[in-house]
Amino acid sequence: MASLEAKAARKEKLRMEIYSVGVVSSFGDNTQKIKVFPDFSPGLKGIENSQHLWILYWFHQLPEEKRKVMEVHPHGNSREPKKGVFATRSPARPNPIGLTKVQLVRREDNILTVKGLDALIDSPVLDIKPF
Amino acid sequence: MASLEAKAARKEKLRMEIYSVGVVSSFGDNTQKIKVFPDFSPGLKGIENSQHLWILYWFHQLPEEKRKVMEVHPHGNSREPKKGVFATRSPARPNPIGLTKVQLVRREDNILTVKGLDALIDSPVLDIKPF
Repeated sequence: MASLEAKAARKEKLRMEIYSVGVVSSFGDNTQKIKVFPDFSPGLKGIENSQHLWILYWFHQLPEEKRKVMEVHPHGNSREPKKGVFATRSPARPNPIGLTKVQLVRREDNILTVKGLDALIDSPVLDIKPF
Repeated sequence: MASLEAKAARKEKLRMEIYSVGVVSSFGDNTQKIKVFPDFSPGLKGIENSQHLWILYWFHQLPEEKRKVMEVHPHGNSREPKKGVFATRSPARPNPIGLTKVQLVRREDNILTVKGLDALIDSPVLDIKPF
């Protein structure tokens, strides 16, 4: 990591590897399920005490070339003037990471049932944080 | 991307590459500066209309092996019982991505002056989203 720190200090563009810790596994009526992979389920200890969570996930259906898009029509509406991707919630962005606040309905072992997750099914889940 | 989608559908652990779009470049009295790299500065168009932003950044000083830690003492206090990393805001987590809400004080070209960013200096910035 010394090299990452040194590069960061030189303010260069850095590349990092991330991996999915779980997946959006199913939708019910008004709820969604997140399946955390067994390797990561110890990371859930005590999460049942949180009422709300942040879910970070990957826009896995975004074509790779869309990561180079820097301006988009907000809400995909071509009549709205283009904005920079950082001024929008468009999935087209350099690091296609989605961020949604959800309500934790219940935890059963490594399965979280939540409300309010607007991710597509099969979205790789990157992180879960208490609100 | 078909392969990423197919793997996601099989609910496997996936690896993705992300890169920094900018860096936390300096601290003033009570404000912080984010320098967005020139390649990404068109992504800032219109951001000056946002009062608050989400900043996603990389905990670049976290040693790589800490990404395997699944339980931590909250606030680093060894007298508090251990919790899963997803139930805490610890930087030790599988994907060491920090998330902070900031107030946008001003934008000058590719430099954002913000308030409330608790990232270390030189932290690689991964994404900026309107609040």
